[in-house]
Amino acid sequence: MREVAVIGVGLSRWGELWEQSHRQIWTDAALRAIEDASVDHVDAMYVGCMSGGLFMGQEHLGALLADQLGMGPIPGTRVESACASGGLSFRQAYMAVASGMHDIVLATGLEKMTDVDGGAATYALSTAADQEYECYHGITFPGLYAMMARVHMHKYGTTRTQLAQVAVKNHANGAMNPGAQFRHKVTAEQVMESAMVADPMRLLDCSPITDGAAAAVVVPLELAKKLSKQPIRVAASAHATDSIGLHDRDDMAWLASTAHAAESAYKQAGIGPSDLSFCEVHDCFTIAEIMVVEALGLCDRGRGGPMVESGMSALGGKMPVNPSGGLKSKGHPVGATGVAQVHEAVMQLRGACGDRQVKGARWGLTQNMGGTGASTVIHIFEKA
Amino acid sequence: MREVAVIGVGLSRWGELWEQSHRQIWTDAALRAIEDASVDHVDAMYVGCMSGGLFMGQEHLGALLADQLGMGPIPGTRVESACASGGLSFRQAYMAVASGMHDIVLATGLEKMTDVDGGAATYALSTAADQEYECYHGITFPGLYAMMARVHMHKYGTTRTQLAQVAVKNHANGAMNPGAQFRHKVTAEQVMESAMVADPMRLLDCSPITDGAAAAVVVPLELAKKLSKQPIRVAASAHATDSIGLHDRDDMAWLASTAHAAESAYKQAGIGPSDLSFCEVHDCFTIAEIMVVEALGLCDRGRGGPMVESGMSALGGKMPVNPSGGLKSKGHPVGATGVAQVHEAVMQLRGACGDRQVKGARWGLTQNMGGTGASTVIHIFEKA
Repeated sequence: MREVAVIGVGLSRWGELWEQSHRQIWTDAALRAIEDASVDHVDAMYVGCMSGGLFMGQEHLGALLADQLGMGPIPGTRVESACASGGLSFRQAYMAVASGMHDIVLATGLEKMTDVDGGAATYALSTAADQEYECYHGITFPGLYAMMARVHMHKYGTTRTQLAQVAVKNHANGAMNPGAQFRHKVTAEQVMESAMVADPMRLLDCSPITDGAAAAVVVPLELAKKLSKQPIRVAASAHATDSIGLHDRDDMAWLASTAHAAESAYKQAGIGPSDLSFCEVHDCFTIAEIMVVEALGLCDRGRGGPMVESGMSALGGKMPVNPSGGLKSKGHPVGATGVAQVHEAVMQLRGACGDRQVKGARWGLTQNMGGTGASTVIHIFEKA
Repeated sequence: MREVAVIGVGLSRWGELWEQSHRQIWTDAALRAIEDASVDHVDAMYVGCMSGGLFMGQEHLGALLADQLGMGPIPGTRVESACASGGLSFRQAYMAVASGMHDIVLATGLEKMTDVDGGAATYALSTAADQEYECYHGITFPGLYAMMARVHMHKYGTTRTQLAQVAVKNHANGAMNPGAQFRHKVTAEQVMESAMVADPMRLLDCSPITDGAAAAVVVPLELAKKLSKQPIRVAASAHATDSIGLHDRDDMAWLASTAHAAESAYKQAGIGPSDLSFCEVHDCFTIAEIMVVEALGLCDRGRGGPMVESGMSALGGKMPVNPSGGLKSKGHPVGATGVAQVHEAVMQLRGACGDRQVKGARWGLTQNMGGTGASTVIHIFEKA
C-alpha cells in the first residue's frame, strides 16, 4: 500500500442553514478544501451521508455532487455508516489512494438535517439503531444512550457531575472555534438544570441537530511532499463493528467496536495511546465521550468520569480531548462529523488553531462512531 | 495494485418476499457466496443498498449485517449510488483487496422494496434523480426514461418494435434462469399491448419492483488460485458520472457515464468490445439496454435498436446481452442488481449456466447504472 497524506481541508458554515441547499453547503466545503490543497482537479470523490433519503429526499449524492462540483465524469461514491459516515468516507478515499487506483481524492461528508421537523429527524436518526428490535418499540437515540449512562453509573460510580463536565469542557473549547455552531460556555449547573430529554441525559448532554459539510483532499505521501509545505500523514485507518442492538452486547457500558478499531490503529501507526497529542472523539452525548476515552485506552476501564473531572482531557491537560468543541459545541451534521474531525486534526497538526491550539501537537487521533457504537472508524495523523 | 479474483457467488430468492425480513434475504445470499468460496471467514464486507431509509426504515446496514452474519467486529461498509449501488459495493471490495488492506472481502447488495406501497416506492426511486430540478415537478423514473426513448426514436428512428424486442429477448433468457423473478416468455405484441406507464414505456418495457440480495467473495488472484479450481479474474473496474439532471446533458440520447467508464475498463483489461463473450447490462427499461449497448461500443451510436432486432444480442448471437434475463425478467432489487450481474458473469465464465450458457465464454462485462445514467460502474471478468 502507498503511504497517504492530507494536503487540504475545508468546512462549510455549520448551523441551521435554511437559506442554503445541501448542494451549496457541500460545495462550500469542497471548494475550500480544494483551494487549501492548491490542486486544480481531483480524480475521484467520496461523500459520507447518513440519510439523504429521509432528511432531504435525495439519494445518489456521489453523482449529484460530482456534477455540482463541475468535475464530472469523475467517480463519486456515497458511503454510509450512520453517524460514522464521514469517517468511512475518509477511509474509502484513503484506500482509493493507498491502492494506487486514484491519486488526488476528495473525501467529504454532508448532512442537511433541519429541513424536516423534530419528529422526522428523530425517526431518521433512529434508523442508525436496530429498527425491528429497538426503535419500533419506542426507544430514541437519547433513550439508548441514557440506558448506557445508567449502566455506566451503576457499574463504575460515574456521577451526574462528571457527565456535565464533558459538556462544560467541550463548550469551553468550542467557544474558541469560529466554526462552531454553539460558541458559548456552559456551567455544570446549567447542564444539570437543562431540560430533561431521557433521564439522565438532559438537553445540554446532547449534541445538536446541524446542517453542514466538511471536506479533505487526500494524496499519496510522496506527492504530498511536492504539493504541500505542511502535509499531514495518515498513519492509520481502522474500522470495526459491534452488535447493533444494545441488548445483544455482553456489556452495555463498553464500546467494543472502538476498542477493536483502536487496537488495529495503534498497531498500524506503531504508537500507543500515551504518544497521542490530542484526540477528536464522538461525543454525541456526554456519556459517549466518557465511554470512548476508556475504549481508546486513554484511561482505565470505568475511569472515563474521573478523567474528565481531573482536567486531564481539557485543553492544556495531559491528553486534550475534543479541542474543536466536539459534536456537543461544534455541531453534529451526522454525515459530515467524521470528516470535520479530520479537519480539526489537520489544523491542530499544522499549528493553525489559534486560541484552542494544542501546544506541540505531533500525533492526533480521530474517532467517529455510528449508532450506539455498532461501528467505529479511527484514523491517526502525524505531522509529516 | 494486487490482482483480484472472485471465488464465490450467491443469490437469495428474488421476488415479492413478504415473509422474509431484509436480514434473512441478505444472509441467504451471503452464506451461499461464502459456502461457494469454501472460506471460513471474511475480513471485511460491503453492502450496496439504495435507500434503506425510505424502503425499510433502516440505515447503518454495514454494521447491522456484519452482526447478523455473526462475523463482527469486521468492517461492514454500506455504499450507495442509486441503482448502481451493487456495482459500487463490488468496486469498493475490489479496491480493499487490491490495496492490500484486506484479503477476503464479501461484496454484497440488498434491497427490500415491496414492504412499502407503490406510491412510496415510486418516491423512494425518484431520489435517484435530481429532486429539486426533476422530481418535485412531477416526473417519475418511467417518465424520465420515456423522454430519453422519445429523443432516441426521433433522432435515430428507433422503433416501438425494437424496444419490445429487448423485453422479448430478456424474458426468453430469463425463462431459462431458475433464479429469475419472471420466468415466462413474452411476445412483441404482448409488450406493445401491455398497460401504458409513460408513453412510450409500457408495463412490459419496465423492470419490476423486487426484494432480493446478491453476494460475491473477492480475494487476491494469487490466493484465489490456491483456494479455487475456477477463479474468475477481475480484469477491470471503472466508475464514472454524468450530470444527474437530464436537462443538463448535451445529448439526452447518449449515456456519457457509460461511455467514459467503458473506455477506462477496456484500457485496464487490454481488450476491446469485440473481444467480449457476453455482457450483463442495466436494462431497467427497454430503452436503457438500447442506449447502453451503444455506449459500450457494441454497435454504432444510434444503432442499438437494429442491434437487438438483428438477433445479434440474443443468446447464440454474436454478442449475447443479458443472458441472465436482465433486470427485466430476473428482477431489479436496486441495491442488489450490480452484484447479481457479477454472479451471472462468474457463473457464465465457469460454464455453469445450463440452458442459458454462452458457449465458450472467456470474457464477460457487467454494466450497472444509477438514475438515468448519472453514474455507471463497469467490471470486466476473465476466466483465470
